[in-house]
Amino acid sequence: MEEKAFQEYYPEDYSMCYGCGTRNAEGLKIQSRWDGEESVCLFNPRPYHIAFPGFVYGGLIASVIDCHSTGTAAAGVCRAEGRDMDSGPPLRFVTASLHVDYLKPTPMGGPLELRSRIKEIKGKKVVVTTELLAGGELCARGEVVAVRIPGTMDPGQGR
Amino acid sequence: MEEKAFQEYYPEDYSMCYGCGTRNAEGLKIQSRWDGEESVCLFNPRPYHIAFPGFVYGGLIASVIDCHSTGTAAAGVCRAEGRDMDSGPPLRFVTASLHVDYLKPTPMGGPLELRSRIKEIKGKKVVVTTELLAGGELCARGEVVAVRIPGTMDPGQGR
Repeated sequence: MEEKAFQEYYPEDYSMCYGCGTRNAEGLKIQSRWDGEESVCLFNPRPYHIAFPGFVYGGLIASVIDCHSTGTAAAGVCRAEGRDMDSGPPLRFVTASLHVDYLKPTPMGGPLELRSRIKEIKGKKVVVTTELLAGGELCARGEVVAVRIPGTMDPGQGR
Repeated sequence: MEEKAFQEYYPEDYSMCYGCGTRNAEGLKIQSRWDGEESVCLFNPRPYHIAFPGFVYGGLIASVIDCHSTGTAAAGVCRAEGRDMDSGPPLRFVTASLHVDYLKPTPMGGPLELRSRIKEIKGKKVVVTTELLAGGELCARGEVVAVRIPGTMDPGQGR
């Protein structure tokens, strides 16, 4: 049986995100897992996720980097603390800043492969770097600063 | 009659983008227009464009900043050159880099208002800065480096 994705550990009320929520029926439902020191996400763009015919839309690339990075932040903090992702209290991160360098046009026709690493964990902040490949070629690089979800946004605040 | 949006000037083969193409049936179809020195886009997130209940998904924010900025780049170069957007050759920009700072959680419930300025035009590169407001409150800032579409990606290359 395949290992559970990071996003499958999020409590129900943290699982509505358009990018990665298992409970958002319209959403992208990306899934992230560890592969050694890197976290990996494979995502198949839908046929209409294009910028120009044959090339993936940059906003989609930003979106999958964003959600894969916040998921990696949560999983990375659990790993650093030596605890399971389904132990409490639940960890959920939001994006403080997102940077994407588009290195070359990203071709449609196969899954995007995102590979991320934790660059830094400092207090409530986690910095995650990502390489995005298509057909084995590096097409974009991302850096996300993720922070623990603020109380004002937190649906699980009263938990 | 309302002034045409920047995106309505794109030739048909440049109009398939998921974020801003008038011919992408599934897409967001954002529209951008000048308001003095600033370009403005009003966009209503769909009900499922959430990160958590009540708050807009950050990947959507990145996507609308991205497309509004590349549209502003094209319109800004036309303005700087004193030519109409429907004069040839058509101008179309893609994103070299995208940076978004999420300043506070962006509430659902009304249109997002994006206001952008041209920071720099230098050769084939245009830098566009954006403020994103919801309910009149500044929620995110963006900076996009846009470049003229490369030949390898250009559906209008043989024009």
